Amino acid sequence: MKPLPTAARAGDIAPFHVMDILARAKALESTGRDVIHLEIGEPDFATPEPIVEAGIRALRDGHTHYTSALGLPKLREAIAAFHASRWQAQVAPNRVIVTPGASGALLLALGLLTGPGDEVLMADPGYPCNRHFARFCEARAVSVPVDAGSGFQLTLALIERHATPATRAVLLATPSNPTGTTLPFEELTRIRDWCDTRNIALIVDEIYLALTYDGGEHSAAGWDEVFVVNSFSKYFLMTGWRLGWLVAPAWAVPALERLAQNLFLAAPTPAQHAALAAFEPDTLAMLEARKSELRQRRDYFLPVLRKLGFVIPTAPQGAFYLYADCSRFGDDSHYLANRLLDDAGIATTPGIDFGTHQARHHLRFAYTQPIARLAEATDRLFHFLQA
Amino acid sequence: MKPLPTAARAGDIAPFHVMDILARAKALESTGRDVIHLEIGEPDFATPEPIVEAGIRALRDGHTHYTSALGLPKLREAIAAFHASRWQAQVAPNRVIVTPGASGALLLALGLLTGPGDEVLMADPGYPCNRHFARFCEARAVSVPVDAGSGFQLTLALIERHATPATRAVLLATPSNPTGTTLPFEELTRIRDWCDTRNIALIVDEIYLALTYDGGEHSAAGWDEVFVVNSFSKYFLMTGWRLGWLVAPAWAVPALERLAQNLFLAAPTPAQHAALAAFEPDTLAMLEARKSELRQRRDYFLPVLRKLGFVIPTAPQGAFYLYADCSRFGDDSHYLANRLLDDAGIATTPGIDFGTHQARHHLRFAYTQPIARLAEATDRLFHFLQA
Repeated sequence: MKPLPTAARAGDIAPFHVMDILARAKALESTGRDVIHLEIGEPDFATPEPIVEAGIRALRDGHTHYTSALGLPKLREAIAAFHASRWQAQVAPNRVIVTPGASGALLLALGLLTGPGDEVLMADPGYPCNRHFARFCEARAVSVPVDAGSGFQLTLALIERHATPATRAVLLATPSNPTGTTLPFEELTRIRDWCDTRNIALIVDEIYLALTYDGGEHSAAGWDEVFVVNSFSKYFLMTGWRLGWLVAPAWAVPALERLAQNLFLAAPTPAQHAALAAFEPDTLAMLEARKSELRQRRDYFLPVLRKLGFVIPTAPQGAFYLYADCSRFGDDSHYLANRLLDDAGIATTPGIDFGTHQARHHLRFAYTQPIARLAEATDRLFHFLQA
Repeated sequence: MKPLPTAARAGDIAPFHVMDILARAKALESTGRDVIHLEIGEPDFATPEPIVEAGIRALRDGHTHYTSALGLPKLREAIAAFHASRWQAQVAPNRVIVTPGASGALLLALGLLTGPGDEVLMADPGYPCNRHFARFCEARAVSVPVDAGSGFQLTLALIERHATPATRAVLLATPSNPTGTTLPFEELTRIRDWCDTRNIALIVDEIYLALTYDGGEHSAAGWDEVFVVNSFSKYFLMTGWRLGWLVAPAWAVPALERLAQNLFLAAPTPAQHAALAAFEPDTLAMLEARKSELRQRRDYFLPVLRKLGFVIPTAPQGAFYLYADCSRFGDDSHYLANRLLDDAGIATTPGIDFGTHQARHHLRFAYTQPIARLAEATDRLFHFLQA
């Protein structure tokens, strides 16, 4: 049977190489090998019990029908209240759209704002789906190379240099995946002002914002004209539930509602009910304890990797990633990732999953394992690099 | 604050007018009025208990992390086995992709197959999201007017008449939403052969297939070259869980996997585990009982509507809709829907939600209420139409 003609986008959307690493890791494990998983962007922690119990109650109470496309009103209010209490960001609940993961929020925002011929500025390295969402919408992702000089973040100067008349949106992520670095709030403000005067949309990915370890969590959601993407996956430890949200300008909500009705009808109902428990004080206390554990892991593993010869010029302030220059160990980090897996039983993500800029010189380590496992990884790395 | 420039698609994606009807119905109910809901495409039945209990077990067992983008292997196998046992359709499990609702499956299929300049043939009236998915992908939905002469289905003759060199896909839905009519298997086979020789993709929406009441459930999924969309929402009564599937040709699966990884990462994990219980014999017995209840409602309400003066030339063989020509009562069914709501407390969906062809002459009644409520609706309709 021969393949049919497919849309050009189908050839332009790259695979996640980490998925091959993961598949090979699982194959190794099935032969009895021990693999330390530092590859996937998913915390090892379980969803906190109050959220799970709220999900169970929702199922028992029959909350299995559709919600409205924008989400449960109570959840939209709770998300707005969380923005106020945690970040002092005033967000009207009717600006909050509950989505199937941050993926749904990105699809909505880029689907609304960008089409053929439009350009979206974003950082390279960056979360790979971002450029693929733009490609899906037939827009062009303009990947701007960033490095330690700007903390692996876009700056206003970089944006000005790469903007064209076709620029429709600037997409920032703070903290960043894969680098964990944050954008200073003053720079974010300047970029906001610049976008505002030019009628360019600003999209801020804040899915790791609540996982900022050294203070300085600033949400852009309080600004009426900005699109802010967030998620219950990372800080709230609800990855598999597939729940996120978008804070949008008021003018955009009716069009986003139409897109949501058509693209996914609504986010999963049991997950929406469960998420209501995410903002309870007891749950937040548990989440803060988890966050504290993640910070300890960073504080353990960052100096370890540096000592071993990996170069991490900017200490990451958030997320759960270390984006390490491994060029001292060869000029192909994808090859290195495969050798690390085969020879040391350590799964990592090669830089090519995050763009092209110095991608072959970098590996991403996700510290989504307990410190004891990170210590074991340290030993293995030490022996591997000695060999 | 002024709106930013948006993509052209944002203006082309129409709202669901039924959502306004629903909102007004809820407003009426909040003032104490009784409204009979025949508008939404969602069964009134709860999710069967074995599925709910499996969902609860999944949550208790900590199944809250991501699955792979294609879905739980066990679920893909169970879906394939269901195709074999119910429809004698041989489907290799690796051709099954678990999606967030049929919405996710349609987005994957049209995202893979269609882009700028491409055309997709589909029936008018039809499920409105279909043309919007095509529009989202910058393709053109070619809505082919259908009526009682072809049982409100596309025929090979209609397809041949509307096909152009730009035609990339034909989208069929059997049973159809909003008409509940089915496509004869012989005609489906002819269309398959025609598409096959012309390298045109055939997409068959089978989300109501298991809700065919008079025999003759034929799945196209056994054909290796066809894309088949299905869902746990309708027959399996899992609407709010957001779970569906796509059966795709083997050659297409790697590209669809990349799209899925980027567009939604994976379908909700607890829902995937819950759905494993959907294929248990006890669950299927419950589902068949529900289906029998739906058939009784059709057999009750179809003659009622005809007697009242609505014209339903083709008796629907499936789904849970009656698509009724109401032109005897005026030339604007949207206006009639609003009057039915205000004056008789009956919520329906105006034809304009399903296209443009004779849309103002039609209303869709969803028989998603118990027979006692349908009887009450009958009384109200009688008095409303007398007045």
